[in-house]
Amino acid sequence: MHRVRVRVVEDALDANNTIARANREDFDRHGVTVVNVMSAPGAGKTAILERILREGIGDRRVGVLEGDVQGSLDADRLAHLHVPVTQLNTGSGFGGECHLDANMVRSALPSIPLHDIDLLIVENVGNLVCPAEFHIGEDARIMVASVAEGDDKPGKYPLMFRTCELVVVNKTDLLEHVDFSMGRFDGYLDAVHPGVERMRMSARTGEGVDALRDWLAHLPDRAAAPA
Amino acid sequence: MHRVRVRVVEDALDANNTIARANREDFDRHGVTVVNVMSAPGAGKTAILERILREGIGDRRVGVLEGDVQGSLDADRLAHLHVPVTQLNTGSGFGGECHLDANMVRSALPSIPLHDIDLLIVENVGNLVCPAEFHIGEDARIMVASVAEGDDKPGKYPLMFRTCELVVVNKTDLLEHVDFSMGRFDGYLDAVHPGVERMRMSARTGEGVDALRDWLAHLPDRAAAPA
Repeated sequence: MHRVRVRVVEDALDANNTIARANREDFDRHGVTVVNVMSAPGAGKTAILERILREGIGDRRVGVLEGDVQGSLDADRLAHLHVPVTQLNTGSGFGGECHLDANMVRSALPSIPLHDIDLLIVENVGNLVCPAEFHIGEDARIMVASVAEGDDKPGKYPLMFRTCELVVVNKTDLLEHVDFSMGRFDGYLDAVHPGVERMRMSARTGEGVDALRDWLAHLPDRAAAPA
Repeated sequence: MHRVRVRVVEDALDANNTIARANREDFDRHGVTVVNVMSAPGAGKTAILERILREGIGDRRVGVLEGDVQGSLDADRLAHLHVPVTQLNTGSGFGGECHLDANMVRSALPSIPLHDIDLLIVENVGNLVCPAEFHIGEDARIMVASVAEGDDKPGKYPLMFRTCELVVVNKTDLLEHVDFSMGRFDGYLDAVHPGVERMRMSARTGEGVDALRDWLAHLPDRAAAPA
């Protein structure tokens, strides 16, 4: 008798990855590049978005997906910037989840005008642990760390810093007022993700904002990629 | 025929609560008061502990349980303070959990000298979402918010601010350098937890540290409670 052995799936995150691939196919079909922005609560993700969206990102048409446990405080802050913003709350229907996963993003896709944008910026729930475990179909991840949080965070939350393409060190305007050594931070960071690209930034003063805008403008263009 | 109907347990957190009660019985038997300290990453929990432990908390014998995803950076910082510190890592054996739950704490109990302490301070994993969902058998919860995180956090992470007995607003030395309004913070806080006790603090300058030490010294004394 012919027997087929199906290997038991070992990765509990496989279901998520399956849905992430479906999201990715939808993004590809619409030629949309997707960036997943993650950080601890209050590191300045929204302030950075306000800064870079004010002047635009090259000729890219941008959309934003805001992930929050509850409310629409961040989406409200972006409302005047004339980009389509979709609010996704993990507290209603998802049990107050501390992260976005592929299925939540999938449920939001009908509300995102994929045919009218080239770049989708996803602002994840503020959390340094679980968001890193869940791919959502993104092309790249940006990790934002505030100098006010201390320079040891890559050592304490390694997965988050290991699975991103860019680390933004924000609130550099506070450097002289906090105990933060850029050298120590780089040391912790290189221990978990050697050589990862990093940028200094102050959403408050504008330092580094152009560099991030440039980085986003030159992310691989899904529309130009072979179908 | 006699029929017994057992109501299906509706609360997925019931198993956690069952273990939390077992922890609580152990704490009570040893006359140990337990405080669960929570915050976002980098809000200053460890810096506050360093400050209050340096001079002691009344005549209470204090122990610390450090919860981290990985490493022992915080426990190392407390090592010179001559209090027993137990490190609990959620990344080994618990799948990199973003919070402490009752079972993790239970697994650490044999390593905590309950017979030698009166007050156990538990420093939870830095996270504003999930730690609030898991009771560990504590008597009280302290929520630490840094002014660098912005004044809207109670509105965005309501459960955390709703389930604590004390809110500590830390890093007040940065107030003049950040966009943080104490009035707006209080407004958001009172909307989710009207009238909850709150304290201003700067672990850096020492502002408010005595008030917290006093608060901890006067927490209900489990040893004096009827068995």
